[in-house]
Amino acid sequence: MLRTPEQIISSLPLVVGEKKSKAIQTTQHPLGPLTASEILESSRLIKQEWPSITDVNFKAITLRDPKKAGLAPYLEAERIGQKSSSPARKSFVLCYLRKTDKLHEAIVNLSTSSVESNLRLGQFVHSNSDGSEIIEIEEICLDDERVQADIAKLKLPEGAVAIGDTWIDGSDGVNEGEFSDTRRLYQCFLYLRDPNYAGESDNNHYAMPLTTSHVNDCKEWKIIRIDFLSTGIDNTTKEPSKYKVQPLNEYISEAQTLCTDVKPLKVIHLEGASFRVSNFCEQGQAISRQKWEFKVGFNQREGMVLYDVHYAGRPLFYRPSLPDMAIPNADPRHPFHKKQAFDLGDFGAGIMANNLQLGCDYPGSIHYLSPVLSNDKRASVRNRELVLQSIITVSNYEYILAFQFNQAGEIMYEAHATGILSPQPIDEVIEVPWGTVVHPGVLATHHQHIFSLRVDPMIGGSNNRVDFNPHGIGYTVKETPITTSGGYDLIYDVNRTLKIQNKSVKNPINDKPVAYKIHVPKAANKDSFHFRRAEFADHNIYVTSHQDKKLYAGGKYTNQSRGGTGVRSWAERKDNVLDDNLVVWVQFGINHVPRSEDFPVMPCEIVKLSLKPVNFFEKNPALDEPHSTQSFDGSVLLSAHGGEDLAAKIDGKVKVYCVKETSKL
Amino acid sequence: MLRTPEQIISSLPLVVGEKKSKAIQTTQHPLGPLTASEILESSRLIKQEWPSITDVNFKAITLRDPKKAGLAPYLEAERIGQKSSSPARKSFVLCYLRKTDKLHEAIVNLSTSSVESNLRLGQFVHSNSDGSEIIEIEEICLDDERVQADIAKLKLPEGAVAIGDTWIDGSDGVNEGEFSDTRRLYQCFLYLRDPNYAGESDNNHYAMPLTTSHVNDCKEWKIIRIDFLSTGIDNTTKEPSKYKVQPLNEYISEAQTLCTDVKPLKVIHLEGASFRVSNFCEQGQAISRQKWEFKVGFNQREGMVLYDVHYAGRPLFYRPSLPDMAIPNADPRHPFHKKQAFDLGDFGAGIMANNLQLGCDYPGSIHYLSPVLSNDKRASVRNRELVLQSIITVSNYEYILAFQFNQAGEIMYEAHATGILSPQPIDEVIEVPWGTVVHPGVLATHHQHIFSLRVDPMIGGSNNRVDFNPHGIGYTVKETPITTSGGYDLIYDVNRTLKIQNKSVKNPINDKPVAYKIHVPKAANKDSFHFRRAEFADHNIYVTSHQDKKLYAGGKYTNQSRGGTGVRSWAERKDNVLDDNLVVWVQFGINHVPRSEDFPVMPCEIVKLSLKPVNFFEKNPALDEPHSTQSFDGSVLLSAHGGEDLAAKIDGKVKVYCVKETSKL
Repeated sequence: MLRTPEQIISSLPLVVGEKKSKAIQTTQHPLGPLTASEILESSRLIKQEWPSITDVNFKAITLRDPKKAGLAPYLEAERIGQKSSSPARKSFVLCYLRKTDKLHEAIVNLSTSSVESNLRLGQFVHSNSDGSEIIEIEEICLDDERVQADIAKLKLPEGAVAIGDTWIDGSDGVNEGEFSDTRRLYQCFLYLRDPNYAGESDNNHYAMPLTTSHVNDCKEWKIIRIDFLSTGIDNTTKEPSKYKVQPLNEYISEAQTLCTDVKPLKVIHLEGASFRVSNFCEQGQAISRQKWEFKVGFNQREGMVLYDVHYAGRPLFYRPSLPDMAIPNADPRHPFHKKQAFDLGDFGAGIMANNLQLGCDYPGSIHYLSPVLSNDKRASVRNRELVLQSIITVSNYEYILAFQFNQAGEIMYEAHATGILSPQPIDEVIEVPWGTVVHPGVLATHHQHIFSLRVDPMIGGSNNRVDFNPHGIGYTVKETPITTSGGYDLIYDVNRTLKIQNKSVKNPINDKPVAYKIHVPKAANKDSFHFRRAEFADHNIYVTSHQDKKLYAGGKYTNQSRGGTGVRSWAERKDNVLDDNLVVWVQFGINHVPRSEDFPVMPCEIVKLSLKPVNFFEKNPALDEPHSTQSFDGSVLLSAHGGEDLAAKIDGKVKVYCVKETSKL
Repeated sequence: MLRTPEQIISSLPLVVGEKKSKAIQTTQHPLGPLTASEILESSRLIKQEWPSITDVNFKAITLRDPKKAGLAPYLEAERIGQKSSSPARKSFVLCYLRKTDKLHEAIVNLSTSSVESNLRLGQFVHSNSDGSEIIEIEEICLDDERVQADIAKLKLPEGAVAIGDTWIDGSDGVNEGEFSDTRRLYQCFLYLRDPNYAGESDNNHYAMPLTTSHVNDCKEWKIIRIDFLSTGIDNTTKEPSKYKVQPLNEYISEAQTLCTDVKPLKVIHLEGASFRVSNFCEQGQAISRQKWEFKVGFNQREGMVLYDVHYAGRPLFYRPSLPDMAIPNADPRHPFHKKQAFDLGDFGAGIMANNLQLGCDYPGSIHYLSPVLSNDKRASVRNRELVLQSIITVSNYEYILAFQFNQAGEIMYEAHATGILSPQPIDEVIEVPWGTVVHPGVLATHHQHIFSLRVDPMIGGSNNRVDFNPHGIGYTVKETPITTSGGYDLIYDVNRTLKIQNKSVKNPINDKPVAYKIHVPKAANKDSFHFRRAEFADHNIYVTSHQDKKLYAGGKYTNQSRGGTGVRSWAERKDNVLDDNLVVWVQFGINHVPRSEDFPVMPCEIVKLSLKPVNFFEKNPALDEPHSTQSFDGSVLLSAHGGEDLAAKIDGKVKVYCVKETSKL
């Protein structure tokens, strides 16, 4: 699943401080991401748990969130400018003893400089992947004599370079034979680097998939199985034979005749931005824009996390974040049927193991894109949005994940998926029903991206409820409160929508409980055959009671997971969720049936959900926005720049329509 | 439904030329909107049909589109730079003989300077509304002694001004008693102008609805009925009594304390735009941007119409346009149950009667907003869009209607609805299930906006087919071709989608027919009780064979229509639509359950559908786009402008997320 360290997001955004060997006196905010010193101190304390020669392979060192109930008084005091005692500062540490399958999960109390717990986890539990492991597996594969012998049978053209593409071995729990064990396994697929651009690591090797694949064990670090891949219409496999070099399908710009008729479009805040950013602690930022206020944290699994979201001083959400995403693929044949990536759980949006920046063995560098995003659409009153966006690159895929806040008290969450399909070889001329031939000999299988957004509400304060609102005959609205935790489905054909309400706070205009409604686009097909592991993908909505440690919809550990540890299991507790401290989990997705246009690089697929106030405010809260004027906006008529003015046909004031250019990913 | 002439879109974008009295030698392009001379010539020829003393009230003079089959060779020749003979140039003229119910529909042949047909239309057929009529009705109401007596009973505060708000009288065909006739009727509702801003015509009178309403006949031009409106929980009505002045709820900026913390955001093309606009005739523009090419026409009913859309020289769509929109309201009580506006059919997006600019009796002025829209989001390769947008104001509502074209050969159609709710009075304290109290004494009823987009495809050339693609178990895709015309539904819960294909043109990569797929957001509830008149609202999709005169989903005349003349009726022909010249009609909508936040001005509701190539191109057609660079885009880090740089925590290259501001309506 991962390719080269250069393509891997590999570190928390920490400032590498000088190494301290003693317990530190923390003055950090309870919600602030760990500092470099805190990470070093955590690793030091954990290493002391074992003999000094133990080779500890850290997988994650990240903030252990304080308990919501305990933190509430602290945050309330903070809002009125008072200090109150802060809870103990703790870190969560995940590590292997290297070259073993011994995975440990520890809680370090940084306030007391002590290890509170350090537990070895049971079988079927594996940690997230990391870039150094991926590189090692690909090297083992390509150095293996059996693999080299198979590659030789392909009689590749001179200068051809085979490269590996490693996926976590998805557990299917059935017919696994000798592999139905507890080992941590990776499956490595092989591709050929475009011979014309053999020195270009960014080239599109996905246009040349090879037919052998290898399974590696992460304890012995060796190949334990070689698969020949099915390239026909059924399960039949063949021995490697001469590889047919197909026409190239390259995306790198060196291989294109680039068009030259695009002129720059600039977005400028000449007087600075209208939002303010300040540090609420060393590693955390507080952001405000007009009536919006919230804190931004950052961790290994989720990346960007928001805390304590308020509008006009009124509480809305405690900790919204995107903790999980599943990407099942559709080919039912071994070993393709195990291709289900959890890009956050198996890898991490905040990525990667913190120890890598602290003098350990990992050479990765952060490879984020550096986006500057602005939208400008203009109407009589401008709707301007504050966008908080994160871009993550997970091997062949790239995601843009953004919270968008507008002046009307609305929050949108937008996910963009782009990048390169993860294809496999297919014989020429044939078709299969679970994929599309996107290039000669290249099959892109149908797949889904199922996102799970965790909405941790505090609409008008604590104790919320969730109501469904089906719209029946005559447009009347019937509200059905959800009383116990469980999985629920929006029914799109009857406009069944969802509202989070606070019954104890009423809107003075119409006496209705203050609420936010969630509009969710259609989730991906719930008949996923990866259903069991993707513990959230079967319902649009899960509602559970709030529990501090239950943060990740797919469970804490998704790598080779067998289910039973995620939101579906928690919902089965049948806890009360009526007028209580609850969490709403919203699933939404992209159902991707590949097209030839999706290759070699796919255009962006965008999916967006919204959280909108419903009788929360007494009136439109954006009324105090100044009207838009030409002197303020500085819009330029096309005619002034070489185009032709389509407006002003009768006189200078008449503008019937306009042609504009817009730019977004 | 309409209020004051200042708020009404009132004219085609024509250049008023000098009056010519003779037949003109037309050299216009067959698809060009009528010129001023052509409009004058049409009206002159029609007036000659009657005795010179006849007072002709023109309702529309607009282009009669040439037949598609006849025009195809002309457009093909044009694409290769050749001239071929053009079809006769014709206009469509709609007019009443003033102060009668005699509505006539005429076809004028401008090439021969003759009237080809001039037919009086039958009962139940009424023309679109226009601003002068609306003003006249409101004046009649307010001048009527009975109305003044009723208003006097309200004991309004000194300086209060009552104003009218006129709706077309929707036909329900049942229990109409004495009104089950063929008369053309309008219903006028009354509101009070905010006494604090009595001189401000833009103020929010919708916060003060009055309880009497009047029905006017457009032949006699008099009030034929006075209604007292139900303001309780049932049908009970009361005589007018003292009006309770509620707290104000004003949206005009004079009534707000405006925020001052918003700084300007500018979007600039320093080197000019990347698209080209040229006139293909006097009133029509051809637009090209990179591989996109199309013509833009404009007419009374639809406003902006696209013709002959090509990408990379390949034909895609012949004539996409938005011909209809229905807005049923939910209150089941008389007379509210008749409130169903057809903002295009009853009024016209291209609006209003052309004669108004030609020296006739209407003082309206075009009141379009003058938008300059640009989006800029940035990623490794920029996705820039060409947006062709039209804004229409229909009394209390404002719509932004936009075609968006990107480099990947995709077309999006986006509709925004904003403006002011059309509310009614309600007694204090009570609730009703078909609406929301948005202000004391003000009820906003649930309603829908059901749009109908007409997709006139020529995917890869003529003779297309439409396939449904439900996604079943195991993600396989099953295609089911539609063979006969009819109404069809997307089934969102099984991801049933739609593809327009051309079986005779195959993609060389995978031998699949070239296609475009349509992704449609959930349409509004089809259980509309205005179902019969909104001849398109009951299915997401209608597929019909192409007929040149069948352009408008709701039928040519929606005013007081009783159904039977729109796309549902045409679909019942059960014509062949398999591999034939077909039209796809796509319905999508907004289901609006009002919130207190929607008053006094509602935040924008946005709905968007897309038309994306599926195996139409051999690969992603945007590959030749140059990569995005900082020198080209000129993005500015926040730190340079008074904010704080969130990036660069480890070194200058590390950017984990960014905060940006975006602006759109």
